[in-house]
Amino acid sequence: MTLLKTFASAVGLVMAASPLAFSETKLNHDAEYYVLQAQHGEQWKKDDKAVDDKLAQFKKKNGGKAPNIVYILVDDIGYGDMGIPELNALRGYETPNVNKLANEGMRISRMYTEPSCTPTRVAMMTGRQPHRNGMGDTAVDIAGFGLAGKEVTIAEVLSEAGYNTVHIGKWHMGDIAESWPHNQGFDFAAFPVHQQGQLTIFHDDAANEEIAYGIGENNYDSRFTKDRWFRPDASAMVTALEAKKGGKPKEVYMKPGERWNEKKYEEMNYRYQDQAMEHLKKLAAKDEPFFLQYWPLYPLTGARVPYDQYTTPNGGTYVEKLKLLDKWVGDIMAEMEKLGVADNTILVLMGDNGHFTKYSPGSGFTPLVFRGGKADTTEGGVRVDAFVKWPGMIEADSIVSDIFQVSDLFTTLARLASAEDNIPTDRLIDGVDQSALLLLGETKGRRDHVMIYTGNKLAAVVKEHLKLEVPPPGKNPIGANFYDLHRDTREEWPVSTEVGAWGGAEFVRVIQRHMMRKQKFPDEGPARGIPYDGITNLRPESQAAVKAFLTKQKAPMM
Amino acid sequence: MTLLKTFASAVGLVMAASPLAFSETKLNHDAEYYVLQAQHGEQWKKDDKAVDDKLAQFKKKNGGKAPNIVYILVDDIGYGDMGIPELNALRGYETPNVNKLANEGMRISRMYTEPSCTPTRVAMMTGRQPHRNGMGDTAVDIAGFGLAGKEVTIAEVLSEAGYNTVHIGKWHMGDIAESWPHNQGFDFAAFPVHQQGQLTIFHDDAANEEIAYGIGENNYDSRFTKDRWFRPDASAMVTALEAKKGGKPKEVYMKPGERWNEKKYEEMNYRYQDQAMEHLKKLAAKDEPFFLQYWPLYPLTGARVPYDQYTTPNGGTYVEKLKLLDKWVGDIMAEMEKLGVADNTILVLMGDNGHFTKYSPGSGFTPLVFRGGKADTTEGGVRVDAFVKWPGMIEADSIVSDIFQVSDLFTTLARLASAEDNIPTDRLIDGVDQSALLLLGETKGRRDHVMIYTGNKLAAVVKEHLKLEVPPPGKNPIGANFYDLHRDTREEWPVSTEVGAWGGAEFVRVIQRHMMRKQKFPDEGPARGIPYDGITNLRPESQAAVKAFLTKQKAPMM
Repeated sequence: MTLLKTFASAVGLVMAASPLAFSETKLNHDAEYYVLQAQHGEQWKKDDKAVDDKLAQFKKKNGGKAPNIVYILVDDIGYGDMGIPELNALRGYETPNVNKLANEGMRISRMYTEPSCTPTRVAMMTGRQPHRNGMGDTAVDIAGFGLAGKEVTIAEVLSEAGYNTVHIGKWHMGDIAESWPHNQGFDFAAFPVHQQGQLTIFHDDAANEEIAYGIGENNYDSRFTKDRWFRPDASAMVTALEAKKGGKPKEVYMKPGERWNEKKYEEMNYRYQDQAMEHLKKLAAKDEPFFLQYWPLYPLTGARVPYDQYTTPNGGTYVEKLKLLDKWVGDIMAEMEKLGVADNTILVLMGDNGHFTKYSPGSGFTPLVFRGGKADTTEGGVRVDAFVKWPGMIEADSIVSDIFQVSDLFTTLARLASAEDNIPTDRLIDGVDQSALLLLGETKGRRDHVMIYTGNKLAAVVKEHLKLEVPPPGKNPIGANFYDLHRDTREEWPVSTEVGAWGGAEFVRVIQRHMMRKQKFPDEGPARGIPYDGITNLRPESQAAVKAFLTKQKAPMM
Repeated sequence: MTLLKTFASAVGLVMAASPLAFSETKLNHDAEYYVLQAQHGEQWKKDDKAVDDKLAQFKKKNGGKAPNIVYILVDDIGYGDMGIPELNALRGYETPNVNKLANEGMRISRMYTEPSCTPTRVAMMTGRQPHRNGMGDTAVDIAGFGLAGKEVTIAEVLSEAGYNTVHIGKWHMGDIAESWPHNQGFDFAAFPVHQQGQLTIFHDDAANEEIAYGIGENNYDSRFTKDRWFRPDASAMVTALEAKKGGKPKEVYMKPGERWNEKKYEEMNYRYQDQAMEHLKKLAAKDEPFFLQYWPLYPLTGARVPYDQYTTPNGGTYVEKLKLLDKWVGDIMAEMEKLGVADNTILVLMGDNGHFTKYSPGSGFTPLVFRGGKADTTEGGVRVDAFVKWPGMIEADSIVSDIFQVSDLFTTLARLASAEDNIPTDRLIDGVDQSALLLLGETKGRRDHVMIYTGNKLAAVVKEHLKLEVPPPGKNPIGANFYDLHRDTREEWPVSTEVGAWGGAEFVRVIQRHMMRKQKFPDEGPARGIPYDGITNLRPESQAAVKAFLTKQKAPMM
């Protein structure tokens, strides 16, 4: 604590010494941002002017309107799975439509996400890394928590600026009402309450194929089961909801007594694609700019049914769905052309985290250029394919090596939509404005670092091309492992003691600044509430499951 | 033996049953070739006709002459090190000239080499995998053996067909006279006798930097050294020779008493590039078609001198040299344009085997999409970047997924040069004719398998996208490890028992056929002789080193 206090006054000293350089943004960023701003603030001002000019020119040509935004977030994709024909060739499948998108847009080669679904989605939606709002963990069943209503999402920011907003597909930020997209800024939302654990991995078909490894009803011996509430029942959990802004949601797909299976999961995926296309048309027909968020559940899939659909030389379950998804992306791009919105829309396509390696190699994927996958804090968990296309505004067929964190999308899209004034200034915003990188090109990024959390624990720090694996408490940082990500993409060859001796100390300062900043903006827990509250047609089995959950919560724990 | 005999009569039966299908080629190939020919012989005949037509058209346009060939073989390069901007971006360096070549030519995405320098070079030069002629091992010092004079090289094949032939750079196929390029078909050759172990890894500068780990004179305590002949002395070994066809070679660079160092290694590399450019000009000025073989020693380098030349964000020693090499490739391509031979020359650029991981990560490289490096039989050892450009004849910006083994270049280049009749028919030729793949495109390859040897031991077998790690003798093949190379590029997730149960038995048959074939064409040893014999200016210290070597050979061993 003494060390922290000494450190705090040293930080205070620096801040006092250059108050102007630190006050350019109204937002409250993390400490490292200000270290960079102190060095580059003057250049950033010039670049901001150039960005403003480009945006003004665009608006002039676009009838005074800000650009539309289509944001497609793909589940569980690593770097190089899409958009690189030379790597397609190695793996026995093709992604021609995404390859085309790569040729027409910018590849962000250092896009960092969070290590799993929920945290990445929270970071993008709020501009805040999920340790700040208790959303660092991923729930797979009824859990009674979610994204707090007081969080301000990109949908709210854009909505307030006059955008029409629609969310289609995976949401996975809670099973309580305030966490749902129609209560978080979207005019319309169609989404599953939970995620693929329920929808494809431990449903009845998967259990029959032993994918669910004893979770499902079909392959465990229920005569010895005393606790009927121990296993989640995929079919008793609420599947998918649809709702309008502020309204009550209705469950679709399932009638009381029905069982969930792979066929229904397939229908759900196709329906989301259809809904995305349908809403694209509706949104394009309106006067206001729009924000269409489409988060497919594919390629993640569980059971190997239907069996006749394995058409790639690779033959993997996920690969097959990626092929389909690639086609769907192509359909969306073609529809955008047809509707005349291809040129005034920012199209973002990216993955939410690395492969789900628990299903390797049957999925068709194993980690390729990085090590690890979903839930890992090695690069394989957090480095994904990411493309941004905006004809005439973002350089086609370009590749940038600047660091980008998924939370930056929040701030950057707000800025590109001229909605940055709607970003709240009463909380810490991790996402920095990367408009200059997108519009002016490589080296214009405003981030040289990423704090990589697993849940609420800081696990690794990236600064430039160096990565520190945060050592356990009490371990001398001089013994910590450092990796050179240029030379060693897989983090298998720790770099020398010399770098460790300098870097250990300097990285400690980076971490200390980050932790100090939390004294002003402390981490909070998630919102908690009654699961499924307010669903108009809650099935009896779902009601029973909620009751079981609440009863379990009341068991004496201390 | 009984099993083999039974198997032999079964093979005999098949061969007897379809003599025609098996007699299309005059060459003696390995057994697996005939299995494919029995299935595709009719189609191959049609494709051969199409290839003949294309070649005839080319010759007509080219004044009746066969194409020139420039063959650049780069030392120690893995898949994706060159030619893929998205992977350049990850690693902090760029290869713009090779990327351009990739756009103008064909990438062979499954080019298999041998696992190290000597064997790969032997396979390319003779069309024979080096277990056949005792060249499977890599010598790093005076060894008294080499490629036999009775081997017929691609240079001899082309020479006999009227080509002018020049070899510049690394050779590494022996320290005896008959093994040297001017005695193996080249009109002129400039080459080091040994390789980079001597030239950059255990010379004096490297020893000073402890790269040579105690080999060099400067960092071991010679007071305790009893055997003065145990360590090679980089400076006493012959460095580089130059000679004309059939002539006596002369050592260049070194005077008696001089010491070899990194500066001299650098000069050697620059001189080879200059010589390649100079001979390109001379060859282009002549009437006959030419074969220019340029095998740079870079990117392999040892000492970190001179220190002021680290200019990439990656900063690796090899990466810096790869950047230089990329420039040199660009210079050669530009010169070819200038000389007017860009359109009538087949340009091949490829690596000889994977990274030298003993120098990772300081080299700037670690294995990227495959596992392992030089000397490993995992894909990281034997899968390399490979590009072939021939404007108007080979599709630009194409990627093929057919399997190609480096020995195929021998047969294929002979065919493209209309010199296939000079290939000897008295021995086994592993290299198959892949002209149809190059000229007609993907899926036209005539190989679905690779026998991967380490030294004289079969270590792995690739058939289609499946790879068998050959189990140790006596182990039941049902327990052998199989990998699906599409899904698992790093060979870390053995595929299921089902594939093993079928594949184990079928792969055994593949191996049996291969081994049976050796009864007709047995493996032989290399040629042996007096090291350095016939060099006109052999230095006294080199003479002493040869004497020491010969004395050691005479020590009673049995």
